[in-house]
Amino acid sequence: MTVDTKTSANPNAGRPRVVVIGAGFAGIAAVKGLRGADADVILIDRHNYHLFQPLLYQVATAALSPAQIAQPTRAIVRRQKNCTVALGEVTGIDTARKIVRGHTDEIAYDYLVVATGATHAYFGHDEWADAAPGLKTIDDATHIRRRVLGAFEQAETCEDETLRRALMTFVVVGAGPTGVEMAGAIAELARHTLKGEFRNIDPAAARIILAEAGPRVLAAFPEKLSNRARRDLEKIGVEVMTGKAVGNCAADHVVIDGETIPCRTIVWAAGVQASAAARWLGAEADRAGRVKVAADYSLPAQADVFIVGDTAALTDSAGRAVPGLAPAAQQAGKYVARVIRARIEGKDAPPPFKYRDDGTMATIGRGKAIALIRGFGFGGFIAWWMWGVIHIMPLVGFRNRVVVALDWMWSYLTHARGARLITAPKDKRADL
Amino acid sequence: MTVDTKTSANPNAGRPRVVVIGAGFAGIAAVKGLRGADADVILIDRHNYHLFQPLLYQVATAALSPAQIAQPTRAIVRRQKNCTVALGEVTGIDTARKIVRGHTDEIAYDYLVVATGATHAYFGHDEWADAAPGLKTIDDATHIRRRVLGAFEQAETCEDETLRRALMTFVVVGAGPTGVEMAGAIAELARHTLKGEFRNIDPAAARIILAEAGPRVLAAFPEKLSNRARRDLEKIGVEVMTGKAVGNCAADHVVIDGETIPCRTIVWAAGVQASAAARWLGAEADRAGRVKVAADYSLPAQADVFIVGDTAALTDSAGRAVPGLAPAAQQAGKYVARVIRARIEGKDAPPPFKYRDDGTMATIGRGKAIALIRGFGFGGFIAWWMWGVIHIMPLVGFRNRVVVALDWMWSYLTHARGARLITAPKDKRADL
Repeated sequence: MTVDTKTSANPNAGRPRVVVIGAGFAGIAAVKGLRGADADVILIDRHNYHLFQPLLYQVATAALSPAQIAQPTRAIVRRQKNCTVALGEVTGIDTARKIVRGHTDEIAYDYLVVATGATHAYFGHDEWADAAPGLKTIDDATHIRRRVLGAFEQAETCEDETLRRALMTFVVVGAGPTGVEMAGAIAELARHTLKGEFRNIDPAAARIILAEAGPRVLAAFPEKLSNRARRDLEKIGVEVMTGKAVGNCAADHVVIDGETIPCRTIVWAAGVQASAAARWLGAEADRAGRVKVAADYSLPAQADVFIVGDTAALTDSAGRAVPGLAPAAQQAGKYVARVIRARIEGKDAPPPFKYRDDGTMATIGRGKAIALIRGFGFGGFIAWWMWGVIHIMPLVGFRNRVVVALDWMWSYLTHARGARLITAPKDKRADL
Repeated sequence: MTVDTKTSANPNAGRPRVVVIGAGFAGIAAVKGLRGADADVILIDRHNYHLFQPLLYQVATAALSPAQIAQPTRAIVRRQKNCTVALGEVTGIDTARKIVRGHTDEIAYDYLVVATGATHAYFGHDEWADAAPGLKTIDDATHIRRRVLGAFEQAETCEDETLRRALMTFVVVGAGPTGVEMAGAIAELARHTLKGEFRNIDPAAARIILAEAGPRVLAAFPEKLSNRARRDLEKIGVEVMTGKAVGNCAADHVVIDGETIPCRTIVWAAGVQASAAARWLGAEADRAGRVKVAADYSLPAQADVFIVGDTAALTDSAGRAVPGLAPAAQQAGKYVARVIRARIEGKDAPPPFKYRDDGTMATIGRGKAIALIRGFGFGGFIAWWMWGVIHIMPLVGFRNRVVVALDWMWSYLTHARGARLITAPKDKRADL
């Protein structure tokens, strides 16, 4: 990041500057909410794109290409003339001087929106990270894709029956939406997409284990739906192990509930940890590292600093803990934009934030999903279809919408997956 | 590669085994030509996909995603039951023992087809490789994409006018089809796609230089077409420098014809070098490292070893040097399959190879291309349209055909480019 106060200075001196860190759902919503406001907006992100994270597992299982779920940040805000995009990594925040620090530069703010998201949490076992990668970035997704596809490739040419068995064992840890989606998608890849492509192994013989420490899968849903999801998973060939904690993750095995299972591919979907924002700000955080914010998402001690999205912990005005979901992040981003606008324009602050639950869904596989909308729960093909529409519609840009919809229909009709590339720089390909 | 003689042994002992190295145009054509033959075919490649190299520059300039021009090798040969695919890297060939060596294993052959292609040649200046990457693989393409997009990002936040100028200078070395396509595509990216997305720089002010040591661009075409291509390039804002040799390529400058030009992005499209096959085989090679083969593409001293595609040097039965183009590679692959089949079936060998020239084309940019078909040369929109159809039609797989066609039309209508991602593992992102 080499933006500094000078380069980005607006000719209209005196206009307040709003710095937004993070181009995820919350950050983009905050920026868009400030369109036309009498302020200079600077959006900083490490990547040059906004990522549609809910479909990341489809990249990890070779159904979609990275570019299909990512849109250049600059293209998104192209027409918003009061917004400047800066590519760079934030290393700290100095609230006393009202400055955001990068590796080589500093940038001053009048209002700051921190929307830096979350990463994987290994519950004190960071040494598991290499063996059990999580799924938060495009690099994570292509890395997991390489491991999954590479395991079948190695199994095909492996003569040792025990090793072959281990190569064809896939373990997903954590049965929240991401874990369920990953396990279901690996099962479909093995049973359908790869069918008939190998000569020495039968990909359909792959063992796919979904391990969950809690009592049931998709615990955020009512028990009935959760049970239905479990049956659907088992129907497509996923071994669901609930109430079983993972004791170790290593390169060649996993320990589930005391039992050692030889395997070569583990995907971590068990926990998230908020980004470093609490540390940067010296703010109070909850166990998951989320900053405890005031009712308007501001920092209690710093009214001009707002924390939104997965980095914030808030119980809304209706007494409901705001969940770590994309729609909640978007609502929060939009809300803080309103708060900041009101302050700039000297108007009354909007009422405290209230999360609007438009429903939650999780997909299990082809034609299988569960949905909970305004207390009404249902599953099956209709839920799956709705899941698809809801996930395709917000994909930024008409072109991606059309292309992903086409890919989705095509995959449904043919079981084919369009992005089965094992790619990596040469020195990284060793783990194949 | 862990395939060995045992695992891959066919129950029908005594059936000849054909090993094909390389899943490019030549290798795939050879494998397909052996469909139904009474032989076991083993196809070995370092990657798990067949790459449509002629469109690689579109990945490097963010118009297409890698998966759109690559198809899993296993999916291509899924129905060819006599073919086994092995993912692995070949390290040598022992013609005396009739064995192909990999890192850990060996595999015996009765007939061998070497189709390992070509790589960049720096004419004795391998130290230029870091500063001036070439364009042969998907990793090359995403690396160049990262550099080109990253240069604009850095320029946006750069305060030093001289450095900014250098960041916005793009140099393509070599004005063959790849060089011309790259220069044209970078010009369009700068002038159209990125228009209006930056606040501190005008991407259209970028300087794009195409440097060629020879007297004209696209030297394989007649002078009239070549001149037309040059005018088209200049029209879209490419500075064409012909008759100017490159004296040095460094991280922060290039020397062209004695003049030092500060720049940060250089793309090498000046020369190719055949793969290591000649060395593996101890065979006679020409200056570009291509193995001199007999009229049936076999090795003069080893009638059961065939070299095809960019790795082979052959003057065909009509006295014409077979060019290093995809159609020529396909024809050669298909031809050696016929030769091998004839030998297996104890039939007469087919007549010596004769290259069939169906025409050559090069694209310069949106609506601009030149074509030479059976001695008839033309340019402009019709040539461009034909170029598009000819490059989209052979894309393996109906889905990619539809998606790429849609992308192509969409880009034409909107100037948008769909794959503008700067991606790299974290430790590789430093060069951004």
